[in-house]
Amino acid sequence: MERIGRGEKVRAAVIAATLTELTEKGYAALTIDEIARRTGVHKTTIYRRWRDVPTLVLDAVTVHAEVDIPIPDSGDIERDLTRLATSFIGWATSTTGRAILTVLLSDAARIPEIAAIRRQLFEDGPRRADTMITAALARGDLPADVDPAELLKALIAPIFFEIVIIGATVDQKTAAHAVSVALAAARAGVLGRQ
Amino acid sequence: MERIGRGEKVRAAVIAATLTELTEKGYAALTIDEIARRTGVHKTTIYRRWRDVPTLVLDAVTVHAEVDIPIPDSGDIERDLTRLATSFIGWATSTTGRAILTVLLSDAARIPEIAAIRRQLFEDGPRRADTMITAALARGDLPADVDPAELLKALIAPIFFEIVIIGATVDQKTAAHAVSVALAAARAGVLGRQ
Repeated sequence: MERIGRGEKVRAAVIAATLTELTEKGYAALTIDEIARRTGVHKTTIYRRWRDVPTLVLDAVTVHAEVDIPIPDSGDIERDLTRLATSFIGWATSTTGRAILTVLLSDAARIPEIAAIRRQLFEDGPRRADTMITAALARGDLPADVDPAELLKALIAPIFFEIVIIGATVDQKTAAHAVSVALAAARAGVLGRQ
Repeated sequence: MERIGRGEKVRAAVIAATLTELTEKGYAALTIDEIARRTGVHKTTIYRRWRDVPTLVLDAVTVHAEVDIPIPDSGDIERDLTRLATSFIGWATSTTGRAILTVLLSDAARIPEIAAIRRQLFEDGPRRADTMITAALARGDLPADVDPAELLKALIAPIFFEIVIIGATVDQKTAAHAVSVALAAARAGVLGRQ
């Protein structure tokens, strides 16, 4: 039974081509013309779905991160945060994830759209995990004042610091450390809405 | 009374010129020839003190950060961490601090020396504050297992996340939040040596 429609195939092809162009040539060199050429999808079809290059790039990097970072739902917040941190590290250290991070950090100083894409990816993206935290709050596993966005920031900030600033090798220990810092802060009541 | 010797004047002039070249033209364009031309200091004098460009750049960005970020010693660890976080934010959001960060993050993907400079600046640099934390440990203001380096990382990671990843405006509230997260983690016993 064919469940993936033509529209979805076109979308997947355009997103794959966008990721390839982005990570191989960078943001500045990425054009809808080249994506159309690579995929055989007509330019007007691409523009109908994504109104411009920033919209297309944000969609492509978001889809890529969503595939690499599933939202866990084990019923145990420590296990869920550990899985989330682990798959986040997996994403950030994968070939494509590293290349995306490099583009988003290197080009942002010169290209304002890149800073906006980065902000949306790392501020709105983690909101997918809000339900996981809301469920933990409902179970009473976290203090009632915990703001999901603040908990997710507390979780990924130490991981980003190691990867982006120190350039360290990150692994399961990094994930466990980030979880323990985020949970300590949550339980101390300092992750309320800022 | 003249207390600053010729050597110190030369050092200050070379460091100032290095920061100007670095932030105006970037790392790749920085040459000892140009620093010599700008300062009137002979090339061989520069090479005698700094063996190569990476050594000179690391010294320049380190001196700049040390001037902008004094190590507090109030006898109260929360106040000390708050002052440290506040002056760190001041550095990271100053014109020169922002330009240094941009260079260290943008060029690092292409220039391996830059990644090494960034790592040393942000991993070794904060070690200046070890004594401040050791004093707090001696006073019994922090659990005995706290590793100074881990506490300092826990303090600056959330600030970096806001500045570098989100591109948010950071202020006194950001500093206070970072301090509360770092102290919560320290008091929960999760900032031992990793």
